[in-house]
Formats: sequence, structure tokens, C-alpha cells
Amino acid sequence: MAAGPDKAIKRPLYLGVDGGGSKCRAILVGADLQLLGSGLGGPANPLHGFEQTLNSIICATDAALAEAGLQPQAKSELISGLGLAGVNLPSLYQQVKNWSHPFAQLFLTTDLHIASLGAHRGEEGAVIVAGTGSCGYAQVNGQTTILGAHGFPFGDQGSGAWMGLEAIKVVLLASDGLGPSTCLTQMFAEQLGVEGVMIVDKFAGAGSSEYAQLSALVLRAAEAGDAVALSIVKEGTAYLDAIAEKLWQTGVKRLSLIGGLGQALRSWLAPATLARLSEPLMQPEWGAVYFAQQEHGNISGT
Amino acid sequence: MAAGPDKAIKRPLYLGVDGGGSKCRAILVGADLQLLGSGLGGPANPLHGFEQTLNSIICATDAALAEAGLQPQAKSELISGLGLAGVNLPSLYQQVKNWSHPFAQLFLTTDLHIASLGAHRGEEGAVIVAGTGSCGYAQVNGQTTILGAHGFPFGDQGSGAWMGLEAIKVVLLASDGLGPSTCLTQMFAEQLGVEGVMIVDKFAGAGSSEYAQLSALVLRAAEAGDAVALSIVKEGTAYLDAIAEKLWQTGVKRLSLIGGLGQALRSWLAPATLARLSEPLMQPEWGAVYFAQQEHGNISGT
Repeated sequence: MAAGPDKAIKRPLYLGVDGGGSKCRAILVGADLQLLGSGLGGPANPLHGFEQTLNSIICATDAALAEAGLQPQAKSELISGLGLAGVNLPSLYQQVKNWSHPFAQLFLTTDLHIASLGAHRGEEGAVIVAGTGSCGYAQVNGQTTILGAHGFPFGDQGSGAWMGLEAIKVVLLASDGLGPSTCLTQMFAEQLGVEGVMIVDKFAGAGSSEYAQLSALVLRAAEAGDAVALSIVKEGTAYLDAIAEKLWQTGVKRLSLIGGLGQALRSWLAPATLARLSEPLMQPEWGAVYFAQQEHGNISGT
Repeated sequence: MAAGPDKAIKRPLYLGVDGGGSKCRAILVGADLQLLGSGLGGPANPLHGFEQTLNSIICATDAALAEAGLQPQAKSELISGLGLAGVNLPSLYQQVKNWSHPFAQLFLTTDLHIASLGAHRGEEGAVIVAGTGSCGYAQVNGQTTILGAHGFPFGDQGSGAWMGLEAIKVVLLASDGLGPSTCLTQMFAEQLGVEGVMIVDKFAGAGSSEYAQLSALVLRAAEAGDAVALSIVKEGTAYLDAIAEKLWQTGVKRLSLIGGLGQALRSWLAPATLARLSEPLMQPEWGAVYFAQQEHGNISGT
């Protein structure tokens, strides 16, 4: 895919970075949108570690530069677009903006914004994200709507982490005889080797990605007809349906469902939601490149 | 209350310690159950800080010894009873048991056990705890039943922390237009100065005691007839009613409602629950003393 050291490189160079809770992806493209290199870095959610986020971004960038046959010093000529989780919070946005970054220019926006720009190949549109977290995003005529994106444990209904925590709650209630029995109890015992209060021992201090791993059990139990798991999945997808409805009301032309759980949840969504979904066209890191191009163009044009 | 330095001290000396998430209380009593001194220490929940817990226990003990006119070295002659949150988890129980403590003897049990022994003046019985967290505990003929005590955010329905988190959720849903409007939105804005996504900014990384402070707003809104707040309070107290019913089924003679929210929640509990409640007789730190006496007697008697 990448151009390699021999390929003619058209300047200016654009960097697109998608920073998330478990990893960070960077791509380097030329002025002609030719992919020159890509790289991976570690976790990059500033809410869960600011220094780590900056390190992960640099690490992914250097890997992308190396794949393009360029030196780390070339960072100083990059027009960078950076989409990060958490920067919808003003305090975190400002903290990242204050970074003495090594790039020629850095344009910062939310992970949602670049995900939407990617899904609609740089055009306006809307996305529903259902992965470790959940939320909705729409941009129409420059107007942005964000629904959810409140993070775990405040919101994120229908997400993997939310499903995992709900699963723990119902299994604990059942173990006390204070809630209906569920086959999730046996799944927890067989797959995780824990029951009753030992579940708390295992998950005390767990992060949202650890909860999210339980969502596969919830979906399997729901498919097997377990009433308790069904109720979790239906409550979660009803929230996503409500997000889809509100996003559609903004007047978007395209709406995509993205995120690690998107595919698995399709069969549980309302027909009205499914009828409105369009396939995402490009990945979020491409959205970050489109964003950098657009912002750079705006500045150059003034 | 305390005996002071002149008072005749009947040996052996018993220490009773109640360790919780925000503070640690210790009392020193003589063989005749005369109170000789009491002391306070900092947070003592080993789940949230092991070294801090040990420091808080020592600090509270030294203060109790000083009030009794005794030196810190006198710790080596104390028969100590220690009730701690979190030690229903086997890993934490073992960690505390392995402590090279400075006492003559240390008997370790849960905060629930000493709360119940305190409420029933050393006799068996049951307690429902509704404070920052929530749970139920019963001891009948040496058989122990624990309901809940799973901790935040896994369980603790009806507790202050649970009510606070539920309040944040409904206010965020309402701010997205994805849930019914509630006067909690205005209360958050007026009392906390936050609305919408700024609520997440304020509570990101908050501990359960910070969530619990919101429960006063939820109760006030429910009393004012706000349907959303009412639904939170009713869901929470229905859980506590279910705990009361199951505890009563164990055959206990006395059931007490304790914890910081106990009084405020009484008016929301079912009549059947209220009819079964007896006033708590003594504080948990006294329960820790009774526990130390009983365990010491058991060992001496063998």
C-alpha cells in the first residue's frame, strides 16, 4: 500500500492521526492524497493519560515517516490533523492545544469528527459509533451535533463497555437471588472462571475495554434467547435507534454505523435505522487527513 | 466519655476499629467495657489504598491510646477487632491478614459484621446499610448472609453513589433530548454550576463519595414530585425492600437500617420493611470490640 522510499513525494505532506483508548493510527499522504506510509502507536486517549497520548502520537508518526522513507525530523514539515477521544471536554481540548508539538501545523478535533469525515470521504454526514463506547455525531451546513460521547460509566448505552457492566450487574443480582436467573451466570463461570463476589474481585478497577470484552457473552446469550441478556441488548439498541432518529432529523444525507460492535448490533437495530445506514467509505485516519487539508486550505485562503 | 489518665484500667484492653472509605474510628475499652479513649484516622478502605488503610488504623489507635493516657507502645497489649470494607473479597482479606501488625492479637472481619454486632449490642441480627454504598447482612445461628456489598459501580442500588450516578445519567440523557426532562438539570446548573458535557468534565475520575453527594439533590427532586428523580428513588428503595425481605427470611430477630442515607430513605421504604426495623443500639466500632472479645474468648476457651 505504502509508496516506499523511491516514490515521488508530492508536497505538502499531510499527517492524519486517529487516537483512541487502545491504540493510535497515523497515515502520511502527499498533496495528491497518495498514501506514503502508515504507523501504529499505543493508547492515545488524553482522558486516561496525557503524556502517553503524546508519546503514542509521535511513535505512530515516526513509524509512518519511516515507511515513507523519511526521517523523524520531517515532522517539522507535516500539516497534521489529529482526532482524539475526550477533547469534546473543553479542559482536555485546551491541554492538547497547548502541546509544543513538532509539526508544521496541528489541527485538533474530536475522534467523532474525523470518523464522520472518513466515513463520508471528507463530506459532511453523520455516524453512530458502537464500540467500547457509543455516541452519535452529525455535521450539516457546518453545524455540529454530538449525542452521547459522555464516556463510561456516565453514558455509552449500547456500547460494549456498557453491556459488560450491565452483565456484571445482572449476574450479581441473580447470585443474591435479587434478580432473575440468567445463563450469563454460567457463561461467566465457564469463560471467566468467576462467580458471585469473585466477579467483583476480577473487575475491581477494570477499564472500559475490559468491560467491553464481556459484550460478546451478552450478545451470545441474547441470541440464545436469554431474557435478561435480551433486555440488555434491547435497551442498548433502543438508545442507538433513538440516536439514529435524532441524527437523521438534522438533515444529513449519509449516516454510517461504525465501531467494533457495529456489525454485531445490526440485527438488533430497528428497521427504520437500518434503512438509513450507508456503508462507511474510509477509515477515521483518512478523515483526519481530510480535516487537515480543509483547515489548512481555510488558513491559506485567508 | 473517656476515662482519662487517672481512671483505673481493667485489663485486658480491647481495641475496636471501624475502617471505611472516608475515615477510620477506633475505641479503646477495658475488660469491663468501660470506654477509655477514642480516636479518628483517615480513609481505611484497603480496596482504595492499602498503605493508607494501615496508617489510618495506627493513627486512630494512637489517638485512642493517648486519650486513655497510654503510650503508643501499649499497642502490643491490645486485643484488636478490625472491621474493614472490602475484605469480603478473599484477596483483600488475605492481604490484611498478612499485615505484621503491632497488636497482641488482631481479629479481622468485614465492616458489615461489626456494624451488625454493634446495632444488636454483640448479638446476632441483620442490618441494611444505605450510605455511600448499600448492602444487607444477616447472621443467624452462626450462618452469615451477605447481599450486595459489590461496590460501586457494580451494584449498590439505593446507595448515595448509585443515586448520584443515575442522576448524572438522566441529566445527560435529557440534555441530548434522548430522555425525559427533569428538574435535576436545573439543580445541577444551580448547585454545581455545570450542565451538558461539563458534567462529565466535573465528574470524570470522581470517587463514590463525590457521586454520593448528589443524592441529596435526587431526594429533594423526588420530594418535589419530579418523575425522573422519583423513578430513581423508587428503583433504589425497591432494591433495599427486596434486601430487607430476604434478610428477614433468614430468621433474624432484629433488623436495623444504618448508614448515612438510612434516615432520609425511611419515608420511601415499603410499610412491610419499616414494620420490621429496630433501632441500632451501638456504633460499628463497638461491634468491633464485641467481635474481638468473642474471638479472644473462643481462642482462650480452647
